[in-house]
Parts: sequence; structure tokens; C-alpha cells
Amino acid sequence: MFLLLSAISAHRSYKKLDEYLQKDDIESFRHELLRLHPYNQMTWFEQLQNPSLRKKVYESLSAKEFAEIFQKLKVKDQVEKIQELDETYQAEVFSAMSTNRLADLFNRLPEDVIHQSIDQMDAEQARTTMQLMKHEEGTAGALMTTEFVSLNKGLTIEQAIEKLRAFADEAETIYYVYVENDEHQLVGVVSLRHLLASESTKTLEEIMKEEVIQVVQDKDQEDIAKLTKDYDLIAIPVVDDDRHLLGIIMVDEIMDVVEEEATEDLGEFAASRGALGIEISALIAAKKRAPWIMGLLLIGMITAQIISFFESTLQEVVMLSAFIPLVMGAAGNTGTQTLAVIVRSISNDEVKKGVWKIILRELSAGFMIGICSAAVLLIVIPIFYNGNWPLAFIVGGSVFLALGFATFIGCVIPIIINKLNIDPAVASGPFITTLNDMVSIVIYFLIATSFLQYLQ
Amino acid sequence: MFLLLSAISAHRSYKKLDEYLQKDDIESFRHELLRLHPYNQMTWFEQLQNPSLRKKVYESLSAKEFAEIFQKLKVKDQVEKIQELDETYQAEVFSAMSTNRLADLFNRLPEDVIHQSIDQMDAEQARTTMQLMKHEEGTAGALMTTEFVSLNKGLTIEQAIEKLRAFADEAETIYYVYVENDEHQLVGVVSLRHLLASESTKTLEEIMKEEVIQVVQDKDQEDIAKLTKDYDLIAIPVVDDDRHLLGIIMVDEIMDVVEEEATEDLGEFAASRGALGIEISALIAAKKRAPWIMGLLLIGMITAQIISFFESTLQEVVMLSAFIPLVMGAAGNTGTQTLAVIVRSISNDEVKKGVWKIILRELSAGFMIGICSAAVLLIVIPIFYNGNWPLAFIVGGSVFLALGFATFIGCVIPIIINKLNIDPAVASGPFITTLNDMVSIVIYFLIATSFLQYLQ
Repeated sequence: MFLLLSAISAHRSYKKLDEYLQKDDIESFRHELLRLHPYNQMTWFEQLQNPSLRKKVYESLSAKEFAEIFQKLKVKDQVEKIQELDETYQAEVFSAMSTNRLADLFNRLPEDVIHQSIDQMDAEQARTTMQLMKHEEGTAGALMTTEFVSLNKGLTIEQAIEKLRAFADEAETIYYVYVENDEHQLVGVVSLRHLLASESTKTLEEIMKEEVIQVVQDKDQEDIAKLTKDYDLIAIPVVDDDRHLLGIIMVDEIMDVVEEEATEDLGEFAASRGALGIEISALIAAKKRAPWIMGLLLIGMITAQIISFFESTLQEVVMLSAFIPLVMGAAGNTGTQTLAVIVRSISNDEVKKGVWKIILRELSAGFMIGICSAAVLLIVIPIFYNGNWPLAFIVGGSVFLALGFATFIGCVIPIIINKLNIDPAVASGPFITTLNDMVSIVIYFLIATSFLQYLQ
Repeated sequence: MFLLLSAISAHRSYKKLDEYLQKDDIESFRHELLRLHPYNQMTWFEQLQNPSLRKKVYESLSAKEFAEIFQKLKVKDQVEKIQELDETYQAEVFSAMSTNRLADLFNRLPEDVIHQSIDQMDAEQARTTMQLMKHEEGTAGALMTTEFVSLNKGLTIEQAIEKLRAFADEAETIYYVYVENDEHQLVGVVSLRHLLASESTKTLEEIMKEEVIQVVQDKDQEDIAKLTKDYDLIAIPVVDDDRHLLGIIMVDEIMDVVEEEATEDLGEFAASRGALGIEISALIAAKKRAPWIMGLLLIGMITAQIISFFESTLQEVVMLSAFIPLVMGAAGNTGTQTLAVIVRSISNDEVKKGVWKIILRELSAGFMIGICSAAVLLIVIPIFYNGNWPLAFIVGGSVFLALGFATFIGCVIPIIINKLNIDPAVASGPFITTLNDMVSIVIYFLIATSFLQYLQ
């Protein structure tokens, strides 16, 4: 039967699965579940609230079948569910998992559980998993899988295809064949399509590409994502310092990285670094977010001090305080716009093409936006405030100058921070905004104080 | 020779290329260039400023070789360089390009240039390109390529492999073989690895998966990216309403989409929708960004009006105006944090799992952050302002209440907007911030006015 996998049909399958399970119709349940894509199997399993129903699932599926579902779960959920499995079944599930998923899980399990599991595992798998666990999060080593195909350069195409057909079930991908020399060093790559299109009697060495885009094990995941994107790869090999092949990173792991990094940028902008996930508890979210808010509050005390400094000016014309938020807001928004441009262009490596060109572009744009904004205020303020032209000129002029500085700050600070080899996203929105707050408030009150005589 | 493609070695290659070209050593130039990855070829070509050097490149390379470089350029650069090619060469380059890249380019070229080129092209390619041009940007149809492999379900594995070997050079990917019935409808899919691992005498129908993750031609690219990510696909087929296969979308196109969508979110947050690119001119950047700034300026006038309304309160205690930015800033930052969480969870479909749970989580987090912030202010303000406890209580209490409302607004508004089927990222940072500005300023002055008697 043909199954168009829309949200509706998935939902229908999920309902059937629930029914079969409740009715103990194990055969129908297995039939319905196993024809689903592992992602849908996982999605259905994830929403199974009742522990006794989950127990039925474990009983109906072989450890190998359940491992497919299990390894797609979030690590947090894996840790939770692991306690429901009996010891032998658990060991079998572990054995059927890919080593990099297993390493991720082991990194969150207590020592004694790991040791006990390792003892029951295949020696080779145990060794690989332990090795993978050593890699730092966010590096090539932590992202890679060790289920890859590498063949000696001396093999003929025919021999290579033969080997591939044997490997096809185990390896993560057979779409790239990595070619090794006799010292097991990576010396080339052949895509499967190229392999298939080549004459059977040639050797791998004759048809391989010597230029292999590869990364060393401690390479940062952001760089790997960029390489994958630039070179349109579906897998990237990971090597040690002697060019021995350690593993490969698949493009689907990379897709997650791209989104993760983008989320990180958004988090920095929203002053909630590492607290964008919906699954973390309110307490943890508050713990991660509160320091930002409180820190900015303390910096806000400086702004308050600056305004207090101009108390005498304010005392003469109280109306001036009405425009404090407006001037600060305009500067803040412009600075954030500029910052967003710079953060994106730094993460795209576009900044390298010409820092001065970018700064100049931003300043020109800021100047134009400033002119327009000042013009708007010169029209609107006299209308709302009984033709108070001096006020309009003070506010308009301040906004114009503040926008200029805001653009400059939003542009130069992340570039400097980047030069210092710190992640420019750390120069996050709120920080730039707060700096702009101070500068714009000083500009506003300096201008206001100078022209105080013209205000009534 | 083995070429480790680091930034340094690429740079060295680029220098060599420049030298060979200047010395007219065409043979060495071709040798050095053609062994590079197309991405590096493009990167080198892109920075070639001198038109006469570019002319030498066109003369040294066959149209097919140059097409590889050309189709990797940004469309804007393609439009520019196209004018430097003579008519026959240009037509040959077009013929060698993949139809979806060509369609992207044609969408930016004047009618007469297209017509003239179409006349010189292969009829089949011209027809496909014209069809692709009809699809709206951001849909499956616009992302897909028509270079795919589909085979009849009756073929044996052996016959299928035979056909694949013939196709391997032309198709974008042969890693998935799409299986059609006699009416040319998509009925299944076989991965190349599965194909290779199967018995030669079986038919495709026997081994194919009937559950094909597929999209119709007008599907939005954001949904496609999500499918690709969830189901770990390297290609996704595009069908018409009668399930005829129209094309496939490759994962590398999708990687660009994921980043594009993330950039869009960042753009919304920074009030600079569509103006994050570094390559657009200052004038265009200003045009896209100025409306946001000026719009927010006008809304800022409302805040000014609200403050003016409390002029009498301000006149009595001018010092109150010093804390306007602090209260507004705290509310704005908290609202933006919440918004960021909600925007991400909506784009991840996490919101569907339980709106109330999310709202409750956010409100709890907001409450906790509010308590901490108020506590900080109760300590700090009396220190800086000569033990002015009433001021500390007014500001602290306002911040606590303002944070609560800010969390609520930042949470509920994007969820409502999403329910109305509008992109929630449109409820962008500045909009929520501005709304929070008003609410927090009203809270602040209401509290301040009520407790005015306790301030000196």
C-alpha cells in the first residue's frame, strides 16, 4: 500500500497503534509500527504517557527494532526510559545503537551503569564508544560516527563494489568511499556515483579524487557546518594528526548544528544564551536568563545616574523626560540592526572581504535613516506639542546624532571583539543597546542643556 | 598529489592561478584550476577584478568547464558576468548548467536575452527551464532540480543498477532511486545502499519502500527543511497533485534554506527584515530599515504622550524620570527573551505539544526573574540615592510587575499571531518591546503617583 506521509495519515497511524496496543493485538501493532519511518515511530513512542503501555512496546519489539526508535529520542528522554528496560534487553539495545549515539547517551549516565553495560557489549563497539566519549562537545570528534567504509587504494572498481555490497547494511553512508594507502592514511575519495560510472577493471587509486575536504577531530562544529555547506557535501571525514581516518560526520548531524548555531545567535540577541529550549524547566530558564536581566539592570543604574546628573535641566523643563525613551529607543533599534548585519556577515566570513567597506556602508545607511527620522520628528512633534519648534529641533537633532553613534557602535564593537577571537555574538543585542542608551542620553541632554534658553 | 584543502593551501593555489594567468601559461593554469573543487574555483574566480584576466579564463576553459564555476556564483554576479561572454560561448554555458540554476538566473534576466538563449538551447532543456521559472520563490518547485533518476517498478535489481551506471553522470543524485508505476506516478523509493545490498533477480517493487516522504510543488521551503531534518533525508521528491514526479530537492539546497530562515528570524528581531545581507547597497539597506525605525519612532511618540500625561507627578519629583529607561529596559529585555523562546519553539513545532505548559513555564520564569530583579534594586537604589527607600520600593515594585506583564505579552502575542496563521516572527522584537514600553511606563507612573507622598 502506498502511504503518503502527511500529518493526517501519521496521526491516523498513531491512533491505530494506540488501539492495537490497548487491545493486545501485537501482530497488527508490529505490522503498523514497523512500516513507519523511524522518525514517526519515535514521535509516536515519545507521546506514550502510560508506563504499562511502554512495557508492552518493549515486549513486542526485538531489541534491535526498539534500538531504531530509542536512538532517535532526545538524550534526556533516553536516560529516563533506560530505567524501564530489563538488563539483558538494555544491553542488546545498546549493542544495536550506533556508537556515536551511544557515546552521547553514556556521557549522561552514571559511571556504574556504563561499566556494567560495557562489560556486556561487543569488545570492538565498547572500545569505539569509549573513544568517542572522550571528544569535547561541539567538535568533529563528538559529531562523527565510526560506521564508515574505507578501502585500500589498490582495489579494483569491481572489488570495491563487491565490498560495498557487503558493507551496505552496516555503514552510515556508502555514498562516499574513502580511500586509504597501506599505512591506513586517507589519500582520496570516490563518490559512489563515480564508482558506478567507472570501468570495472580500474583501481580506486586511478579514479579517486585526491583533494579530500576533511577535518581534524578537534575542529569546531561551526566550521564543519560551513565546509559542508560550501562544498555541498553529504558526509565529511574526520582524521587524526597523522591523517588516519577516525570517522565521518553525516549531513543530517550538520543540519542540526546549523540550526543550533542560528539559535545561539538568536539567544545572544535576546539575552537568553542557552535558554531558548522549551523543554527546560522554569527554574533553569530563570537561572540562565536572570543574570542577563539583573546585569543589565545594574548597567541601567548608570543611565539613571547620567539622567540624575542633568536634574537641573530636567527641573526647568520636565517635558524633556517624555522623550528620553524615544531617543534611546531609536538609537537602540538602529544599533541592533547594525549588529545583526555584522553578526551574520562575520559568521558567513563575509567580513574578511573588506571591513572598511562594511563600516562605510553601515555608516551611510545610518546617516540616511537618521535624516529621515529627524525629518519625521520635525513634523510630528510640533503637531502634538503645540508648535513647540525648539523641542522638535532638540529631539530631532539628538536622534540624528544618536543614530550615527549607534550605527558606529553596533558596527565596530562586534568587529573588534571578533578580532580578539571572541565569539562576536557575545557582543549581544542588549549589551550594544545599553551602551547606545548611555551615549544617546548624553547626546540628548547635552543638546537640550545647550538650547535650554529656547524652551519655555 | 594529495592536497589538504586548508585555507592556506587554497590561498597558495589562488596565487599560482593568478601567476599562470598573468604569464599566459594556460596549460599550468588549467591543470591547477581543474583539480580544485568547484567551490574553490568559484571563490578564486569571484575575486578576479580585472576584466581582461577574466577574458583569459573564458578563453582557456571549455564552456562546460566554465559552467561548473559559473553556476556556483551568486545570481547577481552571474547577471554581471554574462555580459562578458560572447554569444555562442554563453549559449554553451547555459546548456551545461543544471536547469534549476538556469531558471534562477533567467528569472533575473531581461525577456529578450532569455528568448535569444532559449532558441539556441536543446528543446528539452529549454522546456524544463521555462517550467521551473513558473514556480514561486520559496516553494518546492523553485528549489527542485529535474536531474533525477526514476525507474519502473518492474525492473530487476540488476537492470536497475545497469541503468543507474548509465545515468550516474547526469543526475544530481543517484543515492535514492524513485520508483514509478506504469502511469509514471511515484509509488516507492529505494536507496542505493539498499539496492546494492539486495539480490540481483528481485524487482524494484519487491524491495522498495512504499512510504515516500514527498512534497507537492507549492510546499513552503520552511516545511521542506523541517521534513529533511526530521527524516534525515539527503533528497526529497517533488510531485504534482496526481503524484507524478516533477523533480527532487537536494539537501545542500535545504542547508541554505535553514540558514536563510534563521537569518530571517534574526532580521525580524533586529527590525531589519531582508536587510541583513552585506552585499546590498547602503541606500537599499536604509530603505528597508528606515521604515522600521521611523515606525517605532512614531509609536515612541505614544510613550512620550503617556509620560507627558504624568507631568504633574514628574514636576513634583524630577528624579522619577531617571528610572524610566531602567524600568522600560528591564521589561523590554524580558519580553524579548520570552519572544525568542516562543519564536524558536513555534518554528520547531514544539508549541503544538502544549501551549498552556509553555505559557505557564514562561510566567513562572518571569516571576522568578522579577523577584530577583526587585531584590537587587532594593539593595542598590538606597546605596546610590542616599537611602531613598520609597524610591527603591517604587522602582523595584514597578520592575517586578512590569516583568510579569512583559513575559505575558512576549508569550501570548506571538502564539495568537501564529494561531491567525501569520508568521510569528513578524511579532518581532521591537514591536513587543514597544508594547512593553507602554505597559511598563504606565505601571511605573501609576505606582509612583500612588506613593508620591512618601517621596520627598
